[in-house]
Amino acid sequence: MAQDSLINELIQALRCLPGVGPKSAQRMAFHLLERNRAGARALAQALTAAMDNIHHCASCRSLSESELCRLCADPRRDRSLLCVVETPADVLAVDRATDYKGLYFVLMGHLSPLDGIGPNELGLDKLAARFDSGGITEVILATNPTVEGEATAHYISELARTRGIRPTRIAHGVPLGGELEYVDSGTLSHAFSGRRDI
Amino acid sequence: MAQDSLINELIQALRCLPGVGPKSAQRMAFHLLERNRAGARALAQALTAAMDNIHHCASCRSLSESELCRLCADPRRDRSLLCVVETPADVLAVDRATDYKGLYFVLMGHLSPLDGIGPNELGLDKLAARFDSGGITEVILATNPTVEGEATAHYISELARTRGIRPTRIAHGVPLGGELEYVDSGTLSHAFSGRRDI
Repeated sequence: MAQDSLINELIQALRCLPGVGPKSAQRMAFHLLERNRAGARALAQALTAAMDNIHHCASCRSLSESELCRLCADPRRDRSLLCVVETPADVLAVDRATDYKGLYFVLMGHLSPLDGIGPNELGLDKLAARFDSGGITEVILATNPTVEGEATAHYISELARTRGIRPTRIAHGVPLGGELEYVDSGTLSHAFSGRRDI
Repeated sequence: MAQDSLINELIQALRCLPGVGPKSAQRMAFHLLERNRAGARALAQALTAAMDNIHHCASCRSLSESELCRLCADPRRDRSLLCVVETPADVLAVDRATDYKGLYFVLMGHLSPLDGIGPNELGLDKLAARFDSGGITEVILATNPTVEGEATAHYISELARTRGIRPTRIAHGVPLGGELEYVDSGTLSHAFSGRRDI
């Protein structure tokens, strides 16, 4: 090899980032070494600080620095609404796009028996206990519109229904700005059967 | 914001990587936090180790852990040949693709008077001193085929010629596997005027 082992180690380490292959990793390593050493040091510190201090929120299972995440600790949020999502990124997406003011519950995945991911891995026992503790009137199921996401939503809707809580599912259909011609047939058929009076 | 400041800091820090915008940075941060904390810690260590220990080779100006880089320290390399390139990545590219066994000199850029990059910033005084010290018979100019790269190659060829060293330039023309129809006109005209007997 024409290069030193520390450079190779840096290139290999950069490949832990999603979507970064050998060529991008090499470009990143040389960019940092030649043009942005301060940025690289700041990144190393941010990585260490985040890995050391960020854990799961005791209430919603999302990522958090403190025992309770900001949303769960916020007294202004409506505690009668609970939105169930698959990942912490989904929390951000819902919070940015909507004016939802309730709380969240993050599954950190979806039911996938073949991969050994059952109700306990998703914290559904904890979710059921939260349903039992009372106060929640509606649970909004915002899992992804995939086979696993639908199965997970169905499972949780049963948990809620048996406890007298109203389960709702976010609407699926033609995205705004989309053209019918290019929408896939599953989505179109879903949008058709889910039509509403105007 | 719905997320904690350490997560935001990590997302911001990841944006120092080339080609990483806000969306990719967020995806990387969540991926590391949820699925690859060991990889993130290894990356932090590799970044710190590389920034602390990698400097410029005293002889060729490429990136190196030691006083002299591996190539310059290798006694088997032919010291009568010197290949001039713009970046450390170019050294790797030439070394991987060719059977060149001489030494390299890395400019870490190209002449660009408008950006304040003149001969001294590229270490051309050092290169001239190396020409003067004798032993070099041919200098291969492998700067990029851009206006600045050509100007830099021309400048160095004059330095070499006045010292009785033969300057050569890597060939430019139609890339192998390319189709004439799709090659840009500058490259095609270059390939045409540079035609050789077969």
